[in-house]
Amino acid sequence: MVDPRLFGEIDPPQRLLMGPGPINAHPRVLRAMSADLLGQFDPEMTAYMNQVMALYRPVFGTENHWTMLIDGTARAGIEAALVSLVAPGDTVLVVNFGRFGLLLTEILARIGAVIERVDAPWGEVVPMAAIAQAIERTGPKLVATVHGDTSTTMAQPLEGLGALCRAAGALSYVDATATIGGMEIATDRWGIDVVTCGLQKCLGGPSGSAPITISEAAAAHIFARRHVEQGIRRADISDGAGLRIGSNYFDLAMIMDYWSDKRLNHHTEATSMLYAARECARLVLEEGLETRFARHAAAGRAMTAGLRAMGLNVFGDDAHRMTNVTGVYIPDAVDGERVRTAMREHFEIEIGTAFGPLQGRIWRIGAMGYNAMKHKVLLTLGALEACLVAEGFVLPVGEAVPAALAAWHAW
Amino acid sequence: MVDPRLFGEIDPPQRLLMGPGPINAHPRVLRAMSADLLGQFDPEMTAYMNQVMALYRPVFGTENHWTMLIDGTARAGIEAALVSLVAPGDTVLVVNFGRFGLLLTEILARIGAVIERVDAPWGEVVPMAAIAQAIERTGPKLVATVHGDTSTTMAQPLEGLGALCRAAGALSYVDATATIGGMEIATDRWGIDVVTCGLQKCLGGPSGSAPITISEAAAAHIFARRHVEQGIRRADISDGAGLRIGSNYFDLAMIMDYWSDKRLNHHTEATSMLYAARECARLVLEEGLETRFARHAAAGRAMTAGLRAMGLNVFGDDAHRMTNVTGVYIPDAVDGERVRTAMREHFEIEIGTAFGPLQGRIWRIGAMGYNAMKHKVLLTLGALEACLVAEGFVLPVGEAVPAALAAWHAW
Repeated sequence: MVDPRLFGEIDPPQRLLMGPGPINAHPRVLRAMSADLLGQFDPEMTAYMNQVMALYRPVFGTENHWTMLIDGTARAGIEAALVSLVAPGDTVLVVNFGRFGLLLTEILARIGAVIERVDAPWGEVVPMAAIAQAIERTGPKLVATVHGDTSTTMAQPLEGLGALCRAAGALSYVDATATIGGMEIATDRWGIDVVTCGLQKCLGGPSGSAPITISEAAAAHIFARRHVEQGIRRADISDGAGLRIGSNYFDLAMIMDYWSDKRLNHHTEATSMLYAARECARLVLEEGLETRFARHAAAGRAMTAGLRAMGLNVFGDDAHRMTNVTGVYIPDAVDGERVRTAMREHFEIEIGTAFGPLQGRIWRIGAMGYNAMKHKVLLTLGALEACLVAEGFVLPVGEAVPAALAAWHAW
Repeated sequence: MVDPRLFGEIDPPQRLLMGPGPINAHPRVLRAMSADLLGQFDPEMTAYMNQVMALYRPVFGTENHWTMLIDGTARAGIEAALVSLVAPGDTVLVVNFGRFGLLLTEILARIGAVIERVDAPWGEVVPMAAIAQAIERTGPKLVATVHGDTSTTMAQPLEGLGALCRAAGALSYVDATATIGGMEIATDRWGIDVVTCGLQKCLGGPSGSAPITISEAAAAHIFARRHVEQGIRRADISDGAGLRIGSNYFDLAMIMDYWSDKRLNHHTEATSMLYAARECARLVLEEGLETRFARHAAAGRAMTAGLRAMGLNVFGDDAHRMTNVTGVYIPDAVDGERVRTAMREHFEIEIGTAFGPLQGRIWRIGAMGYNAMKHKVLLTLGALEACLVAEGFVLPVGEAVPAALAAWHAW
């Protein structure tokens, strides 16, 4: 048997996480998780659940009643939304511009959806006119997309998407994991029916809880598929006529019943993660949404300016770049993984690698949530410059940091 | 917009949770969650993942390589096991003796399994001979059951179940959420292929992470259904020939690849919950499994003796009672919910209500993990006695605590 003394107390290195996420959690979020637990139907616990609902509405830019948490990582929120909205054989249009658009198709394929796609090359976004044409061409029941796709660092414009979908009788879904808390998420103004996210990017928390918001129209669609479990059926809750949702854990009808005044038992709420999610939202609202978005924009502007001042080429379409993660080409003759290792070993700074067609071609450098701070951007640029020089890359030494500083203050 | 100052810092009441779970987390587990995060492929992070695998093997009583975490509550672990093991049309035999046996059928119905059942009345378990007959009658591909079902407080004997299944060419699955860390889980000796659990019962942690162990036979079955996502495909990992698993999030082939040396990206590991799970296992192994099981047995014995000394009737079959949660009939003419409220409001102690056919008929009183302690059992019994007397129930005052104390020390 393993001797547990071989594995000491948890003691991770104090590392600055400047990749595409997860990032360092805000210390207040970490402390919130050390509060003791409550019974899941204790009045104090259900009061905290109701507070979470209230706190996440402005974070999502919505008045939706059904605004709550899925107990799992960001990907759990995506699957809960899709499996609850989509029945086998339903046509879904995926607006795809990177790895996380492809993830939607992967999840939908397992649900048995008929998948249609409108694509942009990695590094671009899909024009709204192309989305409109694709909706007309495919007649989907759901249009699903991603707001910011960290695989390409692009942010898809979503203004007007909801109106297009409603006009075509389609529901709409957006994965906002990578941008929420850093760029505006305007669920109601965009007219999106269901939006999900995670805590581990601009919200400054740990992975493991997936906030979600659901419009009345989507909730009605989902409740039509309600099926109450044997063993906990009650006279006041009846099943819907629709096809039963393909997952029990991700059944949003059951999860809404759990978060409603009915408090119908489903899972046992992940209380510590709920405390974390609550503290993330409190931090966002205390700072103020506009101030927070401006801080992320300054960080992105500074990072981009610094990288360019080093003579590096920034990846992707300038007009649609996420503010909180920047892709930059690895220079020819530089070994990207050696530089990442040097950053980690000498400076305790993590920057990100890339997926799929961009693997080995770009680094992804984040500045989000608790890490979208001036000093962290400057420290990262200074360290990267030193590592590139050590690799023999010729660059204009000392230009990156002042360029970044100037760009930070240009707002 | 909500003013976040309306919702102050997290500050739950200091409540003693003596229900069927969740219970109070061990303070060391709560503190472990306040450690900062790491990048998901940082060498320190993957080292922690490997430590978790090593720590949970003895907790599960197994040598299985594939011993890891599912990022979700206990129910997420159940669904991950079932959706990965079972394809639509497969026959599954559910050994059912309570609400959590019924939950298996609920999940399996959504997977499209052909469900066969062998049942015991609530308060009893299923004799092994009845299971053997049911296997012969139904020819299942999987036999699925629960070890301890908190809805009935019964623990199903599992000695010999694996051999029966293997002889019939079936795989086996057990939900051990309610007993692991409190009663012996002998995955290898019982010969069970997949066992899952959660942290929030006898492991003394928060809900939100589901440890799982998978035999080589089950892993081979699951890898035959492997499907690598678009966007992250690699030359060294090929798809299996079997039917794609019906869920992406719960695809154990992908999750095993993520926890393997391949480190193929899937979800972003819920790092804080991993820290919690790691600390739970360290605590279990430091105490020692046998010592810990004896502590839970003493607590269960003391609770039962105390309740009986009060003149109450304990629910269910004495021979198969879980040690860590005790069902007790609510006396006639006593309002069970009024007593629960008095326990909470006057004593800050939570005891549990019940589900389905037992709702309003029994309370469920737990003593598990950090709460399977002598003083917590005695305090609970003393408080319950006071609340019952206040309700006008006539009982032999002052008998419960000494009876419990004597029973605690009778080991």
